[in-house]
This record gives sequence, structure tokens and C-alpha cells, in this order.
Amino acid sequence: MPTEIERKFLVKSEAWREGLPGERIVQGYLCREKERTVRVRIKGDKGFLTIKGLSEGVSRKEFEYEIPVGEADELLLLCTPPLLDKVRYERRHGGHLWEIDEFAGENHGLIVAEIELDEEGSEFEKPEWVGEEVSDDPRYYNACLVEHPWSQWRKR
Amino acid sequence: MPTEIERKFLVKSEAWREGLPGERIVQGYLCREKERTVRVRIKGDKGFLTIKGLSEGVSRKEFEYEIPVGEADELLLLCTPPLLDKVRYERRHGGHLWEIDEFAGENHGLIVAEIELDEEGSEFEKPEWVGEEVSDDPRYYNACLVEHPWSQWRKR
Repeated sequence: MPTEIERKFLVKSEAWREGLPGERIVQGYLCREKERTVRVRIKGDKGFLTIKGLSEGVSRKEFEYEIPVGEADELLLLCTPPLLDKVRYERRHGGHLWEIDEFAGENHGLIVAEIELDEEGSEFEKPEWVGEEVSDDPRYYNACLVEHPWSQWRKR
Repeated sequence: MPTEIERKFLVKSEAWREGLPGERIVQGYLCREKERTVRVRIKGDKGFLTIKGLSEGVSRKEFEYEIPVGEADELLLLCTPPLLDKVRYERRHGGHLWEIDEFAGENHGLIVAEIELDEEGSEFEKPEWVGEEVSDDPRYYNACLVEHPWSQWRKR
């Protein structure tokens, strides 16, 4: 029963970057509903199809399948535009892997850091470049950033 | 570029049956839009995830991936109910494979036969138990039979 437990934070400084190499991700959604999303993703030279269920707290069912990248490319054409474009960086800190997504296009300027946990209550160490937690804020869901890009939000 | 070219017919007699063994199919849809459908299917003891694009005449883009049957079972729970339940029979005729679907549940009584062709204009021999063509009738799309089951149609 694959369940994803993820916590998401804003990034408050550039200290994480330090010449870290990134990998480009282009993704789109075949389905973007609250109860279920179907995502097509090209990450580097690989293709993926990912189905996620309803978010319950920071947990969510997730099913991911690698598919031929050429087919992923064609499937992106079936997605509801626009596509999401970002660069993914990975950085270990305190025994955990942090994924840092730097968005491009209409979401340029937005950088978020995610950590995947084994259990909902798992302890972890917060790096100093990690800011406010936004796990519960649906506006930061990638599926929402397609329709309501960060550049169009009324900034606080 | 996987494109599916399919023609679909009603079945007008029982002559196809002749003790043919069938395989149960249970399927549901994560997404049921005109432009794209995402189908979860359990066929016998195998699981599949299938994405189809917009129908253009009798052609349609189709991408199918085999997935672990246990995950297919869980993904069926994420689909919008109800699920579609049918028995699939396969019969060769005149060098082509015919797939005959006998529906259960709310679609009980409906039997359709499908043939997959290499090209749109390909010739094929129609068995005598094959009746009216319904390729162009969206009511017979499996995705439509979920919401508008055959038993609720106003019969002609």
C-alpha cells in the first residue's frame, strides 16, 4: 500500500545551492481533481506516470510507474495545458533527503523544499535555509500551480 | 506512436459463443473526459493502466502499461464509481481477432464485438453473428457506460 508522507516548506535563503547540479522536470496533468491526480513527468531522460489519491494531512496514496520517455512526451500533449517546468535539486541533511524545486515559467521565483518521511510523526532536522511550512496549503500543490501560477498570487 | 484503430458492433445472435471460455474484466476510470481517459483494469489476474486520447473517427491514441494487480485493485478504489464489470471472449474469424464483451451489472444484456485494425480502411470479414456498427456512437464507449448504463437507455 504505497503511501507518500511529505512535508513541504518554503526556502528562505540561497545557502542550499552551493553549485548543486539540478535536473530539469517537465510535467503535466491528465487529471487534476481533489480526490485523484494523474501526472505525466519527464525527469532528465526518464518518463513517469504517477497517480495520487486524496491528501489526508501530510499523507497521500501514491503509485508511480516508469514509462518510455518518448511516450511520456506524447502523453504531455494529452495533458491540460500549461505544463509545469522546474529544476529539481537534491540535498542530504541530517540523514534525510531534501528535494528542492526551483520553478520556471509562470511560477518563476518560487522555490520549495520537500522531505519524504517514513511515518507522519517522524522527527527530522530542519536545515537553516528552510523556512515556513506549507504542507497543508493547497496553493502549493503542483497540480494547483498549473492553473494558479505563483506569479499571479496576491503576495502577502 | 501507438494509435488504436477499432471498430465496434452490436452482437445479433449467440452463434459466437459455442462454449468459448471468457475472462472477467473489472475496470474503472480515474479520468473520463472527451479529450482523455485514464482507465484502471483488472483482466484475469493482471492489472493495467491505459490512457486514451480524443477519438478521431475510428482512431485513437492509446498507451497501455501493465501494473501489479494488487496496485490495480487499490487504484480501482480511487476511480469514480461505479466500476464496469464484463466478461471478455476472444474469437478469431477471417484472420482477425474479435473481442466480444458481455457486460454485467447495470449494463447486463449488452454484448458488443470489437475488431482492431492496422489501418483505418483495412478490409475485414464480418461474421454472421455481428450486427449493426456502433463505432461512432459515444453511448457505447466504456467510459460512457459507467455513467449511463445500457439498462437505463430508452430502447429503440
